Amino acid sequence: MKALEEKIVKEGTWLPGNILKVGSFLNHQIDGKFMMELGQEIARLFAQEKIDRILTIETSGIPLAMAASVALGVPMVFAKKNRTSNLSGGLYQTVVHSYTHNTDYTVVVEKQYLPAGERVLLVDDFLANGKALMGLMELVNQAGSQTVGAVAAIEKGFQKGGDLLRAQGLRVEALALIDSMDNGNLVFRR
Amino acid sequence: MKALEEKIVKEGTWLPGNILKVGSFLNHQIDGKFMMELGQEIARLFAQEKIDRILTIETSGIPLAMAASVALGVPMVFAKKNRTSNLSGGLYQTVVHSYTHNTDYTVVVEKQYLPAGERVLLVDDFLANGKALMGLMELVNQAGSQTVGAVAAIEKGFQKGGDLLRAQGLRVEALALIDSMDNGNLVFRR
Repeated sequence: MKALEEKIVKEGTWLPGNILKVGSFLNHQIDGKFMMELGQEIARLFAQEKIDRILTIETSGIPLAMAASVALGVPMVFAKKNRTSNLSGGLYQTVVHSYTHNTDYTVVVEKQYLPAGERVLLVDDFLANGKALMGLMELVNQAGSQTVGAVAAIEKGFQKGGDLLRAQGLRVEALALIDSMDNGNLVFRR
Repeated sequence: MKALEEKIVKEGTWLPGNILKVGSFLNHQIDGKFMMELGQEIARLFAQEKIDRILTIETSGIPLAMAASVALGVPMVFAKKNRTSNLSGGLYQTVVHSYTHNTDYTVVVEKQYLPAGERVLLVDDFLANGKALMGLMELVNQAGSQTVGAVAAIEKGFQKGGDLLRAQGLRVEALALIDSMDNGNLVFRR
């Protein structure tokens, strides 16, 4: 998506370790109207698919998932990283490894918000090693539903998570796919 | 807001300790289109005010803050509860006490996303004891900006945080204000 690529080039900054900072519009400060445009692009990409529900993971996936929820006209659910006292009843849960924070964490969804027999689209802000998306797929499997596909705003193609998921037969879309970012020189995959 | 009150009555459930669960539409499963209506109501309430920016706190405030960002046409920023490795540069930070989890936590915002000299509207999903909003006001103060007002989707009037903030001169709006919920019998303030 050209508008997103341009925004990344214009506003993104780079830190050692292939960290791309896009806090000015994607995961700290949010440009609501631009986020809604990304949601419309997701709806366009999956216009031929029946989608019942969007599943994302807190925190940074929430704005994009909400934009997709509006554009597709289906509910969005976010998996929670912490089991809070306000969660009750049955939970689906799995463990996800975070490379960024070098830790494992449990993610949960209340069963009532992930019904069986649905077609679910996964949405997240970043796709790197794919561990978060794999965790979400596991939750969808536990629920007895089907993962229709996955969308990330930004995929780091050189970290192979997306290609691994594609090789398993999952439809994975990136609104911007970066194949290399050596010294801040961004190369987008076309 | 009548549509919100009706949704709370229809879909909300109650747990001991005055816990109101509205995960079906507000803070676990999100109805994107309904959330956008709440954002439009926020824009209507503050139509006479100049607002430069919306500030909320992760996680549950994000969907409503994003809806308000779209409706008002201004950026939204969410304060982060954990200092992640992706945060760099200067941070504004303060400590917030959570009654729900009986713990203190630090919230941070990167300075570049909370500029000086702005008029900031605070948005959150729930307002109970007001500690989260007070923390956000403190961040705005640190930034050298002004808090124009605060909006919660649901205020628990019997927990007094909102009335305390109003007594200090802050404009506080609740899209639904619950004065009592004994045994699940909801009484809304008009």
